[in-house]
Amino acid sequence: MNKPQLPEFLTNIRVVLSRPSHPGNIGSAARAMKTMGLTKLYLVNPKCFPDIEATTLAAGAADVLCEAVVVPTLADALSDVSLACGLTSRRRELTVPLLTPRDIAPELIAWARDNESVAIVLGSETAGLSIEEVEQCNRLVTIPGNPQYFSLNLAMAVQVISYELFSHLDVDIDYLRPAGEWATSKQMEGFYAHLSQTLESMSYYHRRNSKRLMRRMRTLFQRAHLLREEVDILRGFLKQIQYSHDGVDPSRNLRDD
Amino acid sequence: MNKPQLPEFLTNIRVVLSRPSHPGNIGSAARAMKTMGLTKLYLVNPKCFPDIEATTLAAGAADVLCEAVVVPTLADALSDVSLACGLTSRRRELTVPLLTPRDIAPELIAWARDNESVAIVLGSETAGLSIEEVEQCNRLVTIPGNPQYFSLNLAMAVQVISYELFSHLDVDIDYLRPAGEWATSKQMEGFYAHLSQTLESMSYYHRRNSKRLMRRMRTLFQRAHLLREEVDILRGFLKQIQYSHDGVDPSRNLRDD
Repeated sequence: MNKPQLPEFLTNIRVVLSRPSHPGNIGSAARAMKTMGLTKLYLVNPKCFPDIEATTLAAGAADVLCEAVVVPTLADALSDVSLACGLTSRRRELTVPLLTPRDIAPELIAWARDNESVAIVLGSETAGLSIEEVEQCNRLVTIPGNPQYFSLNLAMAVQVISYELFSHLDVDIDYLRPAGEWATSKQMEGFYAHLSQTLESMSYYHRRNSKRLMRRMRTLFQRAHLLREEVDILRGFLKQIQYSHDGVDPSRNLRDD
Repeated sequence: MNKPQLPEFLTNIRVVLSRPSHPGNIGSAARAMKTMGLTKLYLVNPKCFPDIEATTLAAGAADVLCEAVVVPTLADALSDVSLACGLTSRRRELTVPLLTPRDIAPELIAWARDNESVAIVLGSETAGLSIEEVEQCNRLVTIPGNPQYFSLNLAMAVQVISYELFSHLDVDIDYLRPAGEWATSKQMEGFYAHLSQTLESMSYYHRRNSKRLMRRMRTLFQRAHLLREEVDILRGFLKQIQYSHDGVDPSRNLRDD
C-alpha cells in the first residue's frame, strides 16, 4: 500500500515562536512540526538563530529551519494571518473563551482548507505570551495537563498541537498495517468444530463440562480475533494431534473451508 | 476555583523505556509524563542512568527519575503487568491490530481503573522495539504522523501518548478559565436597541440600508459573544456619543436591564 500524501493546505498553517530563548527548542519544534506535516515556522526575535544546536535537534527537519521566517515583532508574523490562535497555560484576565487543542483543531483545519492563513502562537519558554501578544490572537488554547505540575516544554507543546491537528486530517495509517485476512465466521465455526472433535477424541471432555469448556474456548478465540492464516496453523496442529493419537494421516484430512 | 486532583489509578499506568541510549531523552520523558499526571517510569537496561543530563532535562520531574525502576529485561518490567501496549511506527510482520493512541486510551484507562497494571512500552531511539519485545505486548500502537517524515523523538512520543491518555480522563480546565458572566439575550437586545438608536440619532442610517446594517452589527456581536461587562462598556460608550452629539447628560440615562 502506498503512503498517503498530505493535503497541501497544511502550508497555510504556521507555527509562530515568539522570543524563544533556547535554540535547542527551535530545532526540536521544527522536528515536531515536520513529523506532523507542518513546515511553516516563524520566529519572532529569537535569542540565538541560526544556531548549531537548533540544527542538530531538528534532525531531518533542517529544511523547516532553513525556510523559517525571522521577524522582529509578533505583528509582523501575523500580518497576513486571519486566524491567530495563542497557546497559554496561565489563567488569563482576558475572557476569550479557553479551548483545548482538540476543540480548536477542526476550526483551524477548516480555515486552512479555505485558504486562510492560520497561526499557532507560542510565547517564550520563561514567561509564555505577554498580554500584548494575547491581544493579537483570535483564540486562546490550553493543553490540558496535570494541574499540580504543568511544565510543558515549548517543543513538546508544539508536538502536542501538531499531533492534534494531524489527528483531525483523517490521514490513515493503513500503509503501516500488515497485510492479513481476518478469518470469517464460517472459518471460525470450522475451527471450533475441529477443536471440539479433537478434545472429544482425546477424552479431555470426560473430565469436564464439555459445553462450558467449549464456550470458554470460543470466548478466548473470539476475543483474540484470528487471522485466516492462524486458523490454518491451529487446524494443522489439531490434525497432528489426532494423527499421533489415533494414527490417521493428517494429509488425507483436507481443509473443509 | 480549586485545581482538580488527578485520579489515583494513574499510578497503575507505567511507561517502560527499553534500552534508551540518550539520558536526555529519559529526563525529557519523565517531564513529559509528569505534565500529564504519570509517574511510574521503568527503564530496561538503559545505556547511561542515572545521568546528570537526564536530571537536568527532567526539570521539576526529578522525583519521577528518582523513583524510576531499572531492570535488566523487558520481561522484568512487565512481570506484574496485565496489559502491555507497545509503540511502533514500523510496518510489522505481526498482525496484532494496529491502533492509534486515541483508539487505545479508553481501554488503557479502563484497565488501570480496574486496578490492573498497564504498561506503555517504547523501544530504543535507533531501532524501536525488537520483534521479541513486540511479542511481549498485547496491543500495538502507532502515533499517526507525516508518512514522508516520521521521525518522532522518543520523549516526544511519550508526550503524545501521555497527553492522549490525559485527555480521556475528563479533568477539566475550568480552573484556568477566567471568571466572567456572558451577556444574556435580553442584555444583548438592550444593547442592539441602544446601538440602533445611536446610529439613528447620528444620521448614519440616512446613507445606509438601516435594516441591513443592523443585521451586520448583530452578526458581528453575536459571533464575538459578549460578556456582560463588555455590554456595559459599549453602552457607556454609546451614551457618551449621544451626550456629545445632543447634549443629553449620560448619567440621566440609566441602564435599562
